[in-house]
Amino acid sequence: MNGCPSYADRGQHMRALRALKRKLGSSVCTHIEQRRRASLDNARLSFMPEAVIRPENDDAIATLLTIAQRYRVPVTPRGAGSAATGAASPRYGGWVLDLSHWDKIRIDALSGMAYVEAGARTAAIHRAAERQGWFYPPDPSSLEYSTIGGNIACNAGGMRCAKYGVTRDYVYALEGFVADGQKVRWASDLKKFASGYNLRDLMIGSEGTLGIVTRAVLKLIPKPAARWTALAGFADEAAALRTVKSIARARLIPTILEFLDRQTVYCTEQRAGVPVFSNRPKSAVLLIELDGHPTQVRDDSKKLRELLRQEKGTLGYQEATTPKDAQALWTVRRTCSQAMFQLGNAKLNEDIVVPLKSQLALLRYTLALRRRSGLATPTFGHAADGNFHVNIMYDRDDRRQVIAAQKAVGDLMRKVVELGGAITGEHGIGLAKSSFLDLQHNAAEIQAMCAIKKALDPHRILNPGKIFEPFDVLAHPPTTDLRLPWEHGKQ
Amino acid sequence: MNGCPSYADRGQHMRALRALKRKLGSSVCTHIEQRRRASLDNARLSFMPEAVIRPENDDAIATLLTIAQRYRVPVTPRGAGSAATGAASPRYGGWVLDLSHWDKIRIDALSGMAYVEAGARTAAIHRAAERQGWFYPPDPSSLEYSTIGGNIACNAGGMRCAKYGVTRDYVYALEGFVADGQKVRWASDLKKFASGYNLRDLMIGSEGTLGIVTRAVLKLIPKPAARWTALAGFADEAAALRTVKSIARARLIPTILEFLDRQTVYCTEQRAGVPVFSNRPKSAVLLIELDGHPTQVRDDSKKLRELLRQEKGTLGYQEATTPKDAQALWTVRRTCSQAMFQLGNAKLNEDIVVPLKSQLALLRYTLALRRRSGLATPTFGHAADGNFHVNIMYDRDDRRQVIAAQKAVGDLMRKVVELGGAITGEHGIGLAKSSFLDLQHNAAEIQAMCAIKKALDPHRILNPGKIFEPFDVLAHPPTTDLRLPWEHGKQ
Repeated sequence: MNGCPSYADRGQHMRALRALKRKLGSSVCTHIEQRRRASLDNARLSFMPEAVIRPENDDAIATLLTIAQRYRVPVTPRGAGSAATGAASPRYGGWVLDLSHWDKIRIDALSGMAYVEAGARTAAIHRAAERQGWFYPPDPSSLEYSTIGGNIACNAGGMRCAKYGVTRDYVYALEGFVADGQKVRWASDLKKFASGYNLRDLMIGSEGTLGIVTRAVLKLIPKPAARWTALAGFADEAAALRTVKSIARARLIPTILEFLDRQTVYCTEQRAGVPVFSNRPKSAVLLIELDGHPTQVRDDSKKLRELLRQEKGTLGYQEATTPKDAQALWTVRRTCSQAMFQLGNAKLNEDIVVPLKSQLALLRYTLALRRRSGLATPTFGHAADGNFHVNIMYDRDDRRQVIAAQKAVGDLMRKVVELGGAITGEHGIGLAKSSFLDLQHNAAEIQAMCAIKKALDPHRILNPGKIFEPFDVLAHPPTTDLRLPWEHGKQ
Repeated sequence: MNGCPSYADRGQHMRALRALKRKLGSSVCTHIEQRRRASLDNARLSFMPEAVIRPENDDAIATLLTIAQRYRVPVTPRGAGSAATGAASPRYGGWVLDLSHWDKIRIDALSGMAYVEAGARTAAIHRAAERQGWFYPPDPSSLEYSTIGGNIACNAGGMRCAKYGVTRDYVYALEGFVADGQKVRWASDLKKFASGYNLRDLMIGSEGTLGIVTRAVLKLIPKPAARWTALAGFADEAAALRTVKSIARARLIPTILEFLDRQTVYCTEQRAGVPVFSNRPKSAVLLIELDGHPTQVRDDSKKLRELLRQEKGTLGYQEATTPKDAQALWTVRRTCSQAMFQLGNAKLNEDIVVPLKSQLALLRYTLALRRRSGLATPTFGHAADGNFHVNIMYDRDDRRQVIAAQKAVGDLMRKVVELGGAITGEHGIGLAKSSFLDLQHNAAEIQAMCAIKKALDPHRILNPGKIFEPFDVLAHPPTTDLRLPWEHGKQ
């Protein structure tokens, strides 16, 4: 996207807002407090919008887009604001289109489909499906807060993806609007659809820059009947990652295969005051879950136990077959992300992906990064699909550390691409990774993407400034004096 | 796509061809016989190309596209030419880019990925994967001939889709070219990827109109350990389709759930000389397969047997657990498509989709169509995902029947959309269904698709005339004096 978009000037903005208020009345909010809350997401890069609009119905969205188009007002769609990249920050001000109250969920128990509005929370969809014996697999860690609209915007993943796939794999159809306010539907509530271009999957992961998604039809699968959980400790990262390879070689597909490096485990142990494996503190850890038919789970867990016994670096493992016992094994994974804050009051959480064969090379690189930057790099993630969260911990009040952290992120991104990996597996680009887009894609690829953006949103009113426009993170210190909903339990 | 594209005139065409031959030498073929074979696909709508190019390497494709772009020569990519819609016919002449000799296949047995070239045959991919204990599920009926490039172009399905999904669900990454000859890669050989716009899934199903696909990385899954096959006969379509609903209600996900109506079964029985169920000729039929872990298959087959016994309209069923016994049960399904030709020397095979709740309404409508048009409408298909093949049989030498068949297709398409269905589930639009595109999509949707086409292929050189330009099938009688490779066994 070359050239700075030309948006409404102050006078036009005011005229546009008056026109909008005339049409939509009280659903247009200009209170400073609401605008402030809508000015950022979990990346805390704050840009104030002029108004926050909570539309009552489809017509209101069509009207809003028509006026925005006429006056060239940026429109940034918003769900929970739990995006990790600044994708939900209204970079160029304008209007935030808040759909968090569009939260209806209807399950078609015969066809195994969920009809949801964009603001429906991921966990609420899980619960609604499970009440009827169905299962919605994608489980981003923000699921109690995140909305399905946000999940669709960044093609959210989670821990079960290696077996069950990501958000994209569970979307039959989308409904919403193109930039000029016309209503559209991409694909249908059918299990097969091959008519016309597939704009459904183009919309998924486009971070609200190509259209507004208001509703979705999701695919559900029968709820797995049995589950088995194990927590295994290893002498070091190499031993844990050798086991990940052995699991792949055995053609086992665990539902969950979470890896935690020794830095990460150390943090949780410091916080809890006890080691995860009493005989050997600060081990590297794999949290493994199998699910499916009880006999399949029994057979596979037998193979897994054998595998763990054969690996020389295994320090021990614990198993659980009841949900209560499983909860105990989950503690280390559940608490690790917050526990890291003892290493710094801020973190950059990079959701990179590497091929199976390069997992150990990545982990070695995180240690090299730690030595070079002087910052801790606790790393955990979804080993079965190679999607690791490398966390770079720093003190946000120490300018030197801020700069070192940013440099470390750049180095990491280059290394990841060199290893044949991806700079993002489930968060998307937003603002935070826009500077690295050209590491991942060549000029022709980015040119094609920008041509599509221009074709579908010629006036660049939809969530402008994201993905394609390099963003200088160092020039925009994060806003820290606002507590986000998911931080209530945080110390 | 308004307005007729303006392509090279005769003189430009000759200059372009000379330039191409200078660069690519003997891979440019202008023999009449090869051009004729490349002039059509399985829909037999023939348009002569000026040349057929079998490129030796990537550079040759880049060169070809650069020259085509400069001289405005249409380029139609081609694999086996087994498309059902005319998607592979070079509608505006120009050059056919034949990739059928790009057929390399490499299996990464550790990661469960297949690295394939566009011309690799679907069945060859199946066999290469299965040799290493892996499984590539999509199984279009043309699989012994069709290429993966063609499967990707139309997002091919097959019989296993309700359980395993379609081609799209098994593509990790694509490699190829944009219209101007620049090389691109969409996504990567990684299990998660969330960087930039998803052009991979936009390319899949775009029928060669948005770019050239040369290579793909496919997802493989572990080969299911056990299989169970059953063939059940029913008094009528209503009883068979009630059973389909009962299977859904029981949350059983058969790998295969093929439905054959009485017209279809009658044809196979006439051809074979014996009824499928000896006690009751001309029944409606379900062919059911389960696969997976042996215990899961055993449990599910027990439930299925119970279900079949409870359905009042069941006339009987046969089971198979060995591959040889299963082959016998498959005979009726395997032979049904060819057996229909006793009802007419030509057929229109419409791959429509309807929601589960409308399956019986669709079947009733096929009977109404038969009464109204005087043409047989044998229907079979993939009942678990609602993707039915409605076959309209006619005599291609009888002008009245040709017109009646075309009218019947139009009526069927309108009915399908009225029932909440899709005009195509696995063949795509091509030429044959381009007149019905606006039944499926509203003006804003088609406008967005055309804007994308214009953005990625501004000179419309890539497979022009497809999807968006209504094609008059009646004005273009099919070419019948060319035997296609898959017709060698045909009488």
